[in-house]
Amino acid sequence: MLNHPTFATLSAFGLSSALLVASIQSHGAAEDTQQLQAAVTGHIAAHGGTILSDFRELLSMPNVSTSLPDMQKNAAWIADYIGERGFNSKTVSAGGAPYILAERSTPGATKTVLIYAHFDGQPVEPADWKTPPFEPTLKNGENTLDWETAQKQSIDPEWRVYARSAGDDKAPVIALMHAIDAMDDAGLDASVNIKLILDGEEEFGSPTVEQILKEHADYLSADVLLFCDGPMHQSGLRQLVFGVRGDIGVNLTLYGPSRPLHSGHYGNWAPHPTDALMRLLATMKDMDGNIQVAGYLDQVTPISEAEQVAIAAIPSVDAQLQDALSLGRVEGAGERIEMTIMRPAINIVGFQAGGVDDQARNIILSKARASLDLRLVPVQTIDHVKQTIEAHFKNQGFYVTNNEPSEEILRNNPGVIKVDWTGGYPAYRSDLNGEAANKLTAILTEYDGKTPLLSPTLGGSLPIHLFDQELDMPIVLLPIANHDNNQHGRDENMRLGNLLSAIGVYAAVLQEFGRD
Amino acid sequence: MLNHPTFATLSAFGLSSALLVASIQSHGAAEDTQQLQAAVTGHIAAHGGTILSDFRELLSMPNVSTSLPDMQKNAAWIADYIGERGFNSKTVSAGGAPYILAERSTPGATKTVLIYAHFDGQPVEPADWKTPPFEPTLKNGENTLDWETAQKQSIDPEWRVYARSAGDDKAPVIALMHAIDAMDDAGLDASVNIKLILDGEEEFGSPTVEQILKEHADYLSADVLLFCDGPMHQSGLRQLVFGVRGDIGVNLTLYGPSRPLHSGHYGNWAPHPTDALMRLLATMKDMDGNIQVAGYLDQVTPISEAEQVAIAAIPSVDAQLQDALSLGRVEGAGERIEMTIMRPAINIVGFQAGGVDDQARNIILSKARASLDLRLVPVQTIDHVKQTIEAHFKNQGFYVTNNEPSEEILRNNPGVIKVDWTGGYPAYRSDLNGEAANKLTAILTEYDGKTPLLSPTLGGSLPIHLFDQELDMPIVLLPIANHDNNQHGRDENMRLGNLLSAIGVYAAVLQEFGRD
Repeated sequence: MLNHPTFATLSAFGLSSALLVASIQSHGAAEDTQQLQAAVTGHIAAHGGTILSDFRELLSMPNVSTSLPDMQKNAAWIADYIGERGFNSKTVSAGGAPYILAERSTPGATKTVLIYAHFDGQPVEPADWKTPPFEPTLKNGENTLDWETAQKQSIDPEWRVYARSAGDDKAPVIALMHAIDAMDDAGLDASVNIKLILDGEEEFGSPTVEQILKEHADYLSADVLLFCDGPMHQSGLRQLVFGVRGDIGVNLTLYGPSRPLHSGHYGNWAPHPTDALMRLLATMKDMDGNIQVAGYLDQVTPISEAEQVAIAAIPSVDAQLQDALSLGRVEGAGERIEMTIMRPAINIVGFQAGGVDDQARNIILSKARASLDLRLVPVQTIDHVKQTIEAHFKNQGFYVTNNEPSEEILRNNPGVIKVDWTGGYPAYRSDLNGEAANKLTAILTEYDGKTPLLSPTLGGSLPIHLFDQELDMPIVLLPIANHDNNQHGRDENMRLGNLLSAIGVYAAVLQEFGRD
Repeated sequence: MLNHPTFATLSAFGLSSALLVASIQSHGAAEDTQQLQAAVTGHIAAHGGTILSDFRELLSMPNVSTSLPDMQKNAAWIADYIGERGFNSKTVSAGGAPYILAERSTPGATKTVLIYAHFDGQPVEPADWKTPPFEPTLKNGENTLDWETAQKQSIDPEWRVYARSAGDDKAPVIALMHAIDAMDDAGLDASVNIKLILDGEEEFGSPTVEQILKEHADYLSADVLLFCDGPMHQSGLRQLVFGVRGDIGVNLTLYGPSRPLHSGHYGNWAPHPTDALMRLLATMKDMDGNIQVAGYLDQVTPISEAEQVAIAAIPSVDAQLQDALSLGRVEGAGERIEMTIMRPAINIVGFQAGGVDDQARNIILSKARASLDLRLVPVQTIDHVKQTIEAHFKNQGFYVTNNEPSEEILRNNPGVIKVDWTGGYPAYRSDLNGEAANKLTAILTEYDGKTPLLSPTLGGSLPIHLFDQELDMPIVLLPIANHDNNQHGRDENMRLGNLLSAIGVYAAVLQEFGRD
């Protein structure tokens, strides 16, 4: 890589020399694009070490949203970081974790781009990670690189940084500030005012975001809301995304004997709560993921023709993904992944009932517990989802309660399940062919030299419906993370080629969106 | 209790004053019994504080069998403790945890009683316990008592000591040594030589006990083997037990995608391994605990008429137990508990697949894991159990392996399960009406004033088949722990009335078994 720094840097953000030559021969907009590409390339070449150290520093701060001191520390760091680029910011809260709201005006600009990202992360189980989740580790394949040494080299786009929130979702703030630095250093002007809303509680369902949006709707007024979160398409191609699935969590507790029993002395007399919980959960969907809960699908909007056309235009990645993930089968009965995520999903993400292997103890437990993550599509409502799931449990013979059941309830019912709902928001999908969508498509096509994919929805969830409800502007998602970033899991990572590529893309949006 | 020390102490080991009067009016054996009862009562009254402090000290030592230093520390303590009562002992091992073998001769005795107990305990999850598992806690109901103060009082039989192995199985060595102290102090002779085998790895299936027995068969020769382990009947009545279920553990790993996936982006395309594991486990038995694995029951011996008669003579505890355990239903389709444990059981004791509640993460896991505890009955063999279970998994469409599967195997099979067998030994049942059985029944009837229950089997497991195979003597189980001792679970405990009662029962066996 040391021998070819320029080539490495160019390929990092998806440019080929042929394209560069082609764009030089184009019209004025192409010249502006070329100037911007050169500015970004130059900035990365000159300041790659700083990009690395900024990202490392931000990722070193634990950011599980339930720890308010941790979130405040992250917020303070980010406020300083964006303040150095001329952003006025305020850290606000509505009883939850902090949000950062910020703005930077561009003299003469009449349009404003509002950018969303979040700086909290999913809980971690450090024992599962190869390297500690809050000690960012730089790797080239399996090889760990020394940070100090790496910072003196050109960045190889295949290098990855491993840390919680590397992929989801601390990269946008780093990439955006370096886009601004690149433009400032080269004397290139943005065409828009820039506003930010940085969320400190997204991984917990952004419970207070509605209040934040209501209180600060005027401050946040803009012409487009760019949601910077989520992974790029599995093909590695850039995509604009026009929707997200909704999400609600539910914790289930199924009860066994009031005290743990010896599995020899009581095993096949006293029922294991694990057995009943397994059987109950298995009734909720079939092996293809088709939901079997009566009434659950009543509110699902059929997939439109425009959405079907857009999906058909996306290169298929099923076979490649199935191979890369060593999956012997997939759900969906032959449908491509982009179609399966247009439907709701019931994910049994947690099942805890006694230890295994060395921690197995020969007992019949008092409780078996599971956590479900329900992904919703338009126009499923939270109330309907809750009602149909609880009715399903009742139909399966269970006494359903939202509270800890009394001993009397346990004695008098053959099965008792506690249902504890958490968070929850509906899905969002917008027009694939709106004005802002078309403008962003044109900007990315010009900058990348090829049309981005237009995806009707991410499989993942963001509380976008609230932004749609509270703010009057079109909403488009612009993901930057590599698809295999292990978001939410162990060994979460960011491919550095994606981080560097995002600098150019953000710069292009800032330069072009305000122009006619 | 301070007002009625004598009454409290008497009731502690099941004596009523009426019985005491009755036995005074009986023949010579009755006079010996009365003398022995007085000696035991006197010993407990004079040395109750020492009994408590001995038990506390032994329970303070962590004893999970996988920690050899811990087990050596326990063994050294016990060797000293029994040495003070004139036992010659040796601590031996066959590559596993230590065993203590010991003997104390009685001049003129021609018969020998061999006593088995174990001093290791199940693994602990301290967070689940109300009080630390290796800081023994003395309680009266919910009230914690001060040890120093309690040691100066008469022991209330309803007091309980909470600690790992309080009920399973550190009490016998304490009770037996105090039985010997009581007899020695009163000048009462044992009628038998006493031998001990104290097992340091029972909770892990006593993997080396066969080798130990082979190497030391001569040293261990005796006329009866008394297995001192397990709980008393749920009625609280004393019982002699003539069998145990066999046991084998198996750890199962079912595979998902090769890396964890975001449950939004991939949920209903990539299958959760949890879903498949739940469905597979649910095929192994029905809701009544009836095993559905083809061929699994082929080797099961029908319950004999003598066993049916013995069970019918036991007072039924089902309704009382179901109420005490707040169970809204039980398995067995109406059969009493003593009958259900005559059949094999499949216990799903551990299921671990992702966190729940605050630890829930929205991912599709790479692995879901479960641990099963299979309880066996005569004459199921370990090989047959393994073969039929693995064949069942294959019949359910799985690729079954005993090793970590390659990526190629994962890619080429719709379901892959790793099956990791641990330990394993068959069940044991002996004659309910043998000579030693009849003698022990008579001794307990005389001492307690009522006939003990005769139970064909414990639901629990002990490697008794190996003792039967290697040693030439009848084997009878004499449990002392309260049935609700939370054996293997959190808050394991010993009711002190049971500990004190055991002192008398052991003393009666030592005094009477060698007599004609």
